[in-house]
Amino acid sequence: LREGQPFALYAMRRIHEVLDNNAIFRVLRPDCVPRRVLELGEVQALNGAGGLASGLEVEAFAVPGKIALYLEDPEAGPGFGTREGDTVGLKVSETATGASFFFIPSCAALTPELAARLEGAQLVFFDGTLWRDDELIAAGVGTKTGERMGHVAIAEPGGPLDAFATLGIERKVFVHVNNTNPVWLRDAPERAAAEEAGWTVAEDGMEFSL
Amino acid sequence: LREGQPFALYAMRRIHEVLDNNAIFRVLRPDCVPRRVLELGEVQALNGAGGLASGLEVEAFAVPGKIALYLEDPEAGPGFGTREGDTVGLKVSETATGASFFFIPSCAALTPELAARLEGAQLVFFDGTLWRDDELIAAGVGTKTGERMGHVAIAEPGGPLDAFATLGIERKVFVHVNNTNPVWLRDAPERAAAEEAGWTVAEDGMEFSL
Repeated sequence: LREGQPFALYAMRRIHEVLDNNAIFRVLRPDCVPRRVLELGEVQALNGAGGLASGLEVEAFAVPGKIALYLEDPEAGPGFGTREGDTVGLKVSETATGASFFFIPSCAALTPELAARLEGAQLVFFDGTLWRDDELIAAGVGTKTGERMGHVAIAEPGGPLDAFATLGIERKVFVHVNNTNPVWLRDAPERAAAEEAGWTVAEDGMEFSL
Repeated sequence: LREGQPFALYAMRRIHEVLDNNAIFRVLRPDCVPRRVLELGEVQALNGAGGLASGLEVEAFAVPGKIALYLEDPEAGPGFGTREGDTVGLKVSETATGASFFFIPSCAALTPELAARLEGAQLVFFDGTLWRDDELIAAGVGTKTGERMGHVAIAEPGGPLDAFATLGIERKVFVHVNNTNPVWLRDAPERAAAEEAGWTVAEDGMEFSL
């Protein structure tokens, strides 16, 4: 969010409204940082701040999740006012070749629809926040479960370790991994279990080719 | 700004009002991050989030500067609606010994009042954003002068290189140094000139003892 760094800001319309109504985001000058609306299920070209074509296109799709923490409305009941599209996954494709990957850093549940979408994918980056749903509580560093935060834990029933096993995905990478997650530890049994199931734990500087 | 990390947030009243009125800062839970008001010219104890005494005390004082970028009101004319206390310096002291340092990462001009306050100080951290007032423009990375941004440039007439020379300050350290400032370069003549004048350029991990 540096004042003079050009980039294009892609987001759902509801998120743009939040940003438009928050003075602090005025640091992003419109002539420097264009804001572009993503629509669920529409494929659109990804272009740089100056309109430079990237050769890539993106599609946003809704995944189970939760409204941003600072927008939660406790009076709205379960879900805190969450609407469809408040949490999205992205499919990014090279227009010329169709090579693609999925980026889903936050996801509360693996629905049949999501599983069908990911089946046979070349590369999926997926929410690896927690190993167990009560991990923050067990570690004494928080009071929230993964379910409360909108993250399905890796190793819980219905979590990605189980649910991705039969989807025939070529490469599976955990991202958004919390610092309480034992999968970080190279010698932990949890890391071994994740790798045994075909997962990679993302690290800074990793590069992936399609 | 992690959700569960306790710290105490000290700020001027006007800044607290900005934070209070901006939804995004609700991520800082009141039971985890107490907000405490600094008043100009009042010395107060610095305590941790749980009330733990640090043995330190702090005094905020107004320095020439500018309102935050995202709060600028172009219709307010020169100064964009800036009021006294929108930019402050801090004097931090050890209560038991009186040992102290000044922290002034943003300052638009060295007034006689500020010079008098700093005279004979043990240690001063000072705004080193720019070497020259038009540095961003000359480098082609921006359109604003230091004056427009609320920073007095190190080497301009009336800047700290000149103005601190006669104040008898034991240690002088430049902080908040922009990436266009040649003082970063160890072999640059500007670095040599700063060191010749008794200045240190701060780097990550530096420690200072009083």
